[in-house]
Amino acid sequence: MERITLAHGAGGKEMEDLVKKLFQKIKVVKIPDSIGLDNFDDGSSVNVPTSSVVISIDSYTVDPIFFPGGDIGKLAATGSINDVAVMGATPIAALDSIVVEEGFSIKDLETILKSLANVFESENVALLGGDFKVMPKGKIDKIVITTTVIGYLPPNHKLILDSGAKPGDKIIVSGTIGEHGAVITALRMGIETELGNLKSDCMPVTKVMKIAIKNGDIHAAKDPTRGGLAMALNEIAEKSKVSIIVDEEEIPIREEVIALSEMLGIDPLALACEGRVVMSVSPDTAEDILTALHDAGYRDARIIGEVQEKEEGLVLLRTKAGGLRILEKPTGELTPRIC
Amino acid sequence: MERITLAHGAGGKEMEDLVKKLFQKIKVVKIPDSIGLDNFDDGSSVNVPTSSVVISIDSYTVDPIFFPGGDIGKLAATGSINDVAVMGATPIAALDSIVVEEGFSIKDLETILKSLANVFESENVALLGGDFKVMPKGKIDKIVITTTVIGYLPPNHKLILDSGAKPGDKIIVSGTIGEHGAVITALRMGIETELGNLKSDCMPVTKVMKIAIKNGDIHAAKDPTRGGLAMALNEIAEKSKVSIIVDEEEIPIREEVIALSEMLGIDPLALACEGRVVMSVSPDTAEDILTALHDAGYRDARIIGEVQEKEEGLVLLRTKAGGLRILEKPTGELTPRIC
Repeated sequence: MERITLAHGAGGKEMEDLVKKLFQKIKVVKIPDSIGLDNFDDGSSVNVPTSSVVISIDSYTVDPIFFPGGDIGKLAATGSINDVAVMGATPIAALDSIVVEEGFSIKDLETILKSLANVFESENVALLGGDFKVMPKGKIDKIVITTTVIGYLPPNHKLILDSGAKPGDKIIVSGTIGEHGAVITALRMGIETELGNLKSDCMPVTKVMKIAIKNGDIHAAKDPTRGGLAMALNEIAEKSKVSIIVDEEEIPIREEVIALSEMLGIDPLALACEGRVVMSVSPDTAEDILTALHDAGYRDARIIGEVQEKEEGLVLLRTKAGGLRILEKPTGELTPRIC
Repeated sequence: MERITLAHGAGGKEMEDLVKKLFQKIKVVKIPDSIGLDNFDDGSSVNVPTSSVVISIDSYTVDPIFFPGGDIGKLAATGSINDVAVMGATPIAALDSIVVEEGFSIKDLETILKSLANVFESENVALLGGDFKVMPKGKIDKIVITTTVIGYLPPNHKLILDSGAKPGDKIIVSGTIGEHGAVITALRMGIETELGNLKSDCMPVTKVMKIAIKNGDIHAAKDPTRGGLAMALNEIAEKSKVSIIVDEEEIPIREEVIALSEMLGIDPLALACEGRVVMSVSPDTAEDILTALHDAGYRDARIIGEVQEKEEGLVLLRTKAGGLRILEKPTGELTPRIC
């Protein structure tokens, strides 16, 4: 099997040959007049349709790197697209930076790159360029991918911030929560046999955002990744200086995720999603958004709660048993390297 | 000593507290109406003065992380600024993504972050946001930082590409070469006592580029990092479909770098720089650029050669002994983790 050597990362001929070979195997969206992957220049250049550029960076360290529903390449492309999308922007271009361990399989690297490129291509996001580094064996665990996605705010669109939730808003989640976190945690605990058909929910949320923006008025939105729904709600409540009350009964969670959570002793509300949005929307448009999402196939989308004025920064959970408890920000290790 | 724990990377309360604490200690350039570090939102937003956005990403894995002349934070900010600057663009904003090993000293992290922030601040580049991940002990060697810098092309400025060199052009380097590579290699070989006063040349090249653009006509420019001057010249020759001939006699190299290169058995022309530019400029403006660089304090800037028509992609070195040899792209390991 062909493996990565330190020479592949040295910036000389071997690196150039490898990177060119790998990138010939993937399909890349081209933007006219842009300077991108073909150029292998110091940086890249792209014309943005509006002056308002939205940009996000994330490093992906997920362990294991291949999992039901995706791999680190799919995750790295999806995650940064989602960060731009939940701000109300249209992702347009991306950069990736790969740091790989000496000895890593070049075939696996190709598989991962193809996953990453497939997401960008299907989302019409141009992969403009990147970086490639090799660390000696034992100095990094397999592979870390960092992606930057840039987008623009279409004319007459407003930026959707975590701080925009208003009293009276309804809280919508776009689908069942916690699958990504449950899958990765189960794999790490060595109980993958318990997963059944459960897969990571890893997928772009651009379509969800487009539908919601078209059909209603979104005041705040987040993709609940590390820290899960619990962290996302707390961040919105805190930054918007409101309280949020959610109904446990209404939160869509798959039976398998509940069963795994009980087995592992973890709160499903703290489990990472990689393809969901939680949004705070104006009450008069909440049902319209929900119907549009259902019609588009997002059948698990639900109104799970609402925003209240009193008690700034507090998130309350109305439990299935009928009680009310504070839903805190998750603390402790959770699962490291979930994304 | 306070150390990084896995909880610091879990995306919950501990991470939020640490990141907020660290970022309170650094000074950050603010751009009016931008959504940046203060917001801790999913992504960031900035208005760019022109529609032409220039962007670069790089992961920095340098070992050791502290070295004479800088540290991984300074390098991570400088390196990505330089990639944007050598394209003729004005850097405006940045993102950083830090992946750190469990057990890493929080004090060292603070030092590194301050170095990074100092570069961005002194260059008037707004640090808009980032990511922070922790990998378990032994799964990553200390710290890897990825930075993205975005810039814009000022009105009436053209993008400077590697492919723009023209026959007749003069080749200029902005200063002595190979110091960064020599310093890191010496540290890694355990012969730091041989370094004397030698320091990494790590510094932004924005001022060099500004002076050169103002005083002449740059057809191609690169910062010669991994692979050094040899790789940079080969890339320009190949992409511009020209040949380049340089005079060994004219290439500015410090005595200490030559001595270290001889001791280590490496070619100084393949040693990385982190604060130099090699540019191909129209012959009628070469002297003007050189004079302006000298006047601005870049006293080691030199015209080292010229561009020829014949033999596409070839780089020739006229040696001090008077012979002519092909200067190949560097091959082999060089020094891994040089940047």
